[in-house]
Amino acid sequence: MLATLRTSERENFMAQDLSAYQQLEARFRRLGVLSEVSSVLEWDGAVMMPLGAGGQRGDVASEMASMKHEFISDPIVAGLLDEAEEQADQLDPWQVANLREMRHDWIEATAVPGDLVAALAKQANDLELMWRDARAASDFDAVASPLAELIALTKQQASAVGDAKGLAPYDALMGMFSPGQTRADVDPLFDDYAAFLPEFLPQVLEHQSRLPSMTPFDGPLAVDQQHMLSKHLLGQIGFDFDRGRLDTSEHPFCSGTRDDIRMTGRYREDELGIMAPIHECGHAIYEKQLPKEWAFQPVGQSLGMAIHESQSLLHELQVARSPAYIRYLSSILPQYLGDQDAWGVEALTRRLNRVERSYIRVDADEVTYPAHVILRYRLEQAMMSGDLSVADLPGAWSDGLHALLGIRPRNHAEGCLQDIHWFAGLMGYFPSYSLGAMIAAQMFQAAKEALPGLDDDIAQGNFDRLRQWLAQNIHQQGRLLSPPALIRSVTGSSLDIEIFKNHLKARYLPA
Amino acid sequence: MLATLRTSERENFMAQDLSAYQQLEARFRRLGVLSEVSSVLEWDGAVMMPLGAGGQRGDVASEMASMKHEFISDPIVAGLLDEAEEQADQLDPWQVANLREMRHDWIEATAVPGDLVAALAKQANDLELMWRDARAASDFDAVASPLAELIALTKQQASAVGDAKGLAPYDALMGMFSPGQTRADVDPLFDDYAAFLPEFLPQVLEHQSRLPSMTPFDGPLAVDQQHMLSKHLLGQIGFDFDRGRLDTSEHPFCSGTRDDIRMTGRYREDELGIMAPIHECGHAIYEKQLPKEWAFQPVGQSLGMAIHESQSLLHELQVARSPAYIRYLSSILPQYLGDQDAWGVEALTRRLNRVERSYIRVDADEVTYPAHVILRYRLEQAMMSGDLSVADLPGAWSDGLHALLGIRPRNHAEGCLQDIHWFAGLMGYFPSYSLGAMIAAQMFQAAKEALPGLDDDIAQGNFDRLRQWLAQNIHQQGRLLSPPALIRSVTGSSLDIEIFKNHLKARYLPA
Repeated sequence: MLATLRTSERENFMAQDLSAYQQLEARFRRLGVLSEVSSVLEWDGAVMMPLGAGGQRGDVASEMASMKHEFISDPIVAGLLDEAEEQADQLDPWQVANLREMRHDWIEATAVPGDLVAALAKQANDLELMWRDARAASDFDAVASPLAELIALTKQQASAVGDAKGLAPYDALMGMFSPGQTRADVDPLFDDYAAFLPEFLPQVLEHQSRLPSMTPFDGPLAVDQQHMLSKHLLGQIGFDFDRGRLDTSEHPFCSGTRDDIRMTGRYREDELGIMAPIHECGHAIYEKQLPKEWAFQPVGQSLGMAIHESQSLLHELQVARSPAYIRYLSSILPQYLGDQDAWGVEALTRRLNRVERSYIRVDADEVTYPAHVILRYRLEQAMMSGDLSVADLPGAWSDGLHALLGIRPRNHAEGCLQDIHWFAGLMGYFPSYSLGAMIAAQMFQAAKEALPGLDDDIAQGNFDRLRQWLAQNIHQQGRLLSPPALIRSVTGSSLDIEIFKNHLKARYLPA
Repeated sequence: MLATLRTSERENFMAQDLSAYQQLEARFRRLGVLSEVSSVLEWDGAVMMPLGAGGQRGDVASEMASMKHEFISDPIVAGLLDEAEEQADQLDPWQVANLREMRHDWIEATAVPGDLVAALAKQANDLELMWRDARAASDFDAVASPLAELIALTKQQASAVGDAKGLAPYDALMGMFSPGQTRADVDPLFDDYAAFLPEFLPQVLEHQSRLPSMTPFDGPLAVDQQHMLSKHLLGQIGFDFDRGRLDTSEHPFCSGTRDDIRMTGRYREDELGIMAPIHECGHAIYEKQLPKEWAFQPVGQSLGMAIHESQSLLHELQVARSPAYIRYLSSILPQYLGDQDAWGVEALTRRLNRVERSYIRVDADEVTYPAHVILRYRLEQAMMSGDLSVADLPGAWSDGLHALLGIRPRNHAEGCLQDIHWFAGLMGYFPSYSLGAMIAAQMFQAAKEALPGLDDDIAQGNFDRLRQWLAQNIHQQGRLLSPPALIRSVTGSSLDIEIFKNHLKARYLPA
C-alpha cells in the first residue's frame, strides 16, 4: 500500500523513489476507491436505505464529494501532472492515456470551488428525495423552487468548467458525461432526426395499423416470475450473479464495476418487464469487462455515457428486440409466464416493436425515443441560458412534446416530473441516450460483419461470441481512445446517423 | 462546509479565524463521516454484497482504513491537540469531553503504523469470507493458517497501542472496544462467576428438572411470520422503520446510527427467533437516542462495547425474558404464529428461561453464557501471549468448555468456528458481552427504582417510560462520562456482580 497524503512522513520518504507518474497513480487509486464507495452508497440510497435517513445521507454524500474534490485539487497534484507530462516519453501508451485522463479529471475538479461542489451534492441529494414524493403526487410546485436553486448551482458549475476548458457552459456539462461531446456535433444529428421523424413516424404508424391488433395477456404477469425470467436471460447474456445483483427500484439503473455490479429492474403485472433488465445488463457487461489491470485508475473506467448507453442499447434495441432474439424469447417465455398466445413470434414482435406517440421516455419505443430526448435537450439548454424559467417548464414541456409528437401530458407525473435526472443534478446527460442508440446501431452492424452467423447465435440465446467481440474491441479498451476514435476503430467510420435511420426503416417498414 | 485538508488554500485562509478546537471539530467530523460510510459498507458486505465481490471490497476496505488512519495521524493533528488542550479553559464540558476523546482516538491511531492498519483490514476482510465457508464445512484447517497470520498482526497492533498507553497488550485490545477496561478489573469478576457457576448451575438444572417438560410447537414456525412479529415487537420497543431496517444475516448484528440503523435477525422454523432482533434493537435504541447535536463527533458516539451490550442485554435479558414481558408475549404470539399450547405463560417461561449446558454462545441462556465468554477470554489471551498455538486451539477449546460446562463440542462448527469475531480481527471483544450483562442487571434495577409500575408498562408492551429514562440517563450522555462514571451516575455505585447473581437467583431459583 502506497501512502498518498503529502503530509505523511512515509510518503515523503517514498516519494524520493517514485516518479511523478507513479505518485499520481497512488493518488488516483484512492480517488477510484472513493468513487466505488460512492457507487455503493448510491445503490443503497435507491434500493435499501430507509426514507427517513435521507438527510443524514445527504450530509455524508456532501462530505464525500468535498473529500474527493480536495484530494484531486490539492496543489501537489498540479505539480505532479506538470512533471509527469514532461517525462511522458518514459510512459507506455496506456500510461500516457491514464495521464491524459488524470489531467482531464483534474481540470474539471479544480475549475469548481469546493463549497460549490458540496452545495451541489447536498441540494441534489435533498431534491432527489423530494422528487420521489412530488412525482407520486404529480405535484410540480413542491419541487419547482429547489429545482431552480439546483439549476442555479449547475449554471455556476457549467460556467466554471467551461471557462477552464474554453467551452460554452452547456458543452462543458455534456463533456462531463461524454468527453468531447458538443452542441456543434449533436445539433446536426438531432436536427436531422427531428426533420426525419415527422415523415417517418406516420408511415410506421400506418404500416402498423394494418397488422393484427395486440394479443392481450391471459391475466396478470406475476412479478416474481418476471424477476426469475430476467435473471435467467441475464445469466445467458453473461451476467455473473456471484459478482452482482439484480433488485428493483423506482427507476432502473446499473451501478458498480468489475466484480460487484448492482442492477435494478422494475416490474408490473400488466407489462412484460424484461427489457429494462436487459438494458441495464448491457451496462453491466461493459463494466464487468473493463480492463482489470487498470482497476481504480482513470484509464480503466468506462468511456463516458454515450458509449455506455451504446452498450446497453446494443443489447436492448439491436439484439433483444431483433427477430432472432424474439424467436428465442418465444421459446423461453412460456416456461416462466405460462403458455399463451401473446408469446407467439408474431404477437411478441408486435408487442416488443410497437411504435406509438407516448408520454413516458423510459417506456418509449426506439422510433419516438429520440423525440423525448430532443425535447429535454432543448428545454435544459433553455433553462440553463435563462430563456426558460423553471416556473414555465410544465407549459414549455407540453408545447414541446406537442410539436414533436403531437400529444400533451395530462399531468406533471407523465410530464416534466417523470425523470429523475434534473432532480438529481444531471443536466447535459439526456443527449447521450440517443447518441448511444445511434452508436449502437453502427457498432452492431460492425459486429454482424465481423461475426458471420451472429443472428443464429442470438436465436439460440447464445451471446458468447458477441460478448467476446465487445470485450476485445470496446470494453477492454477502457479510456485508451477518445469516443470518436473508438467509434472509428470499431466501425471504420465516424458516427453516421444514416445507419441508425436505415436500421429503423428495415425494422419498422419491412419490404 | 469547512475545509479540513491542510493543503487547501481555503483552509489556510479560514484557519486564521478558527480556534484549534474548531479546526479539530472539522477534521473529526470528516472522520465521523468516513466511519459512517464504513458502517454502511459493512452492513452491505454481510447482508447484500455478492460473494464474488469479496476481493474487490477488501481492496476498498483496506484503502478506507488507510485513509482514516492517515487523516487522524497527520502531524497537524498533534499540534492542534496540544494547542486546544492549552486553551481548554475556554471550552464547555461537552467540548472538553470531545477533546479528551479526540486525544484518545489519536493515541490509538498514531500508535499503529499505516501499513499495519491496512494489512489488518485486508487480512480480516479476506479471512471473514473464508470463515463463512469454513464454518459451513466445519473445516478448521481451511482457516487455521490465515487466522494465525491475523493474530500475529493483532499482536503487533496490541503491543503498539499498549506501549503508547502504558498498558499490557491484551488490556490495550480490550480498551479499544471498551475504554479503560483491563484484566485487573475483569479477572476478579470472571473468576467470581467461574467459582459461582459450578455451585449454582446444578441447583438451577435440578429445579428445572422438576418443571413440566417443554411444550413442543405445533409444526414449523413460518420464517416470514417470525419476521413480521419481530417488526411488530421492535416497533413497540421504539424502533422507527422509517429510519432503519431489519434484515437477516448469518450472525445477527446492528450497525449504523441516528436516522439510519440497520439490524439483522436470523430465523429458523424450529426456533422462536424473536430474542435476537430484540437484542439488536437494544443496540439500535441506544444509537438512535445518541445526542444529535454531537453527530459525527467523538463525544457523540456510543461509550464502548460493554455499555453498548448493556443496552442490548437490558432489553433482551432484563426485559424481554422477564415474567411481565412473557405475559405480554403470550397475548401477542398467537396473532402471528397460531394459537398453540407453547404460547401459554408457563410454557413460554419454560422455553425462554430454559438453562442448559450447550455449545453455541449465541444460543446460550444467561446463566451459562458467561462461561462461553470466560472460555474465549482465556483462550484469546493464551493465543495472544503465545502460550497457545492456533493449531492447538480446537483441543484447548474442547478442554476449556469441558472444564466450565462439562461438555465437549462434537465438531469445529459448534466449537471454535462458531463465532465471527476472531476471524474478523476482533480479539479482546468477548469480555464486553458478559460485563454488559452485569451492567444491564444493575442499570435495570435502577430503572425499576426510578420508575414505579414499570413492570405493568412492560406487561402491556409499553416501553415509552423506559426508553425515555434510558435516553436521559444513558444515551443522551454520549461519551461525556467514562464507563465507570456513567455506571455510578446511573446506579449510584460501581459495578457489582452480586446484583447480577441476585437477578439470576431470583429468576432461576424462585422461592
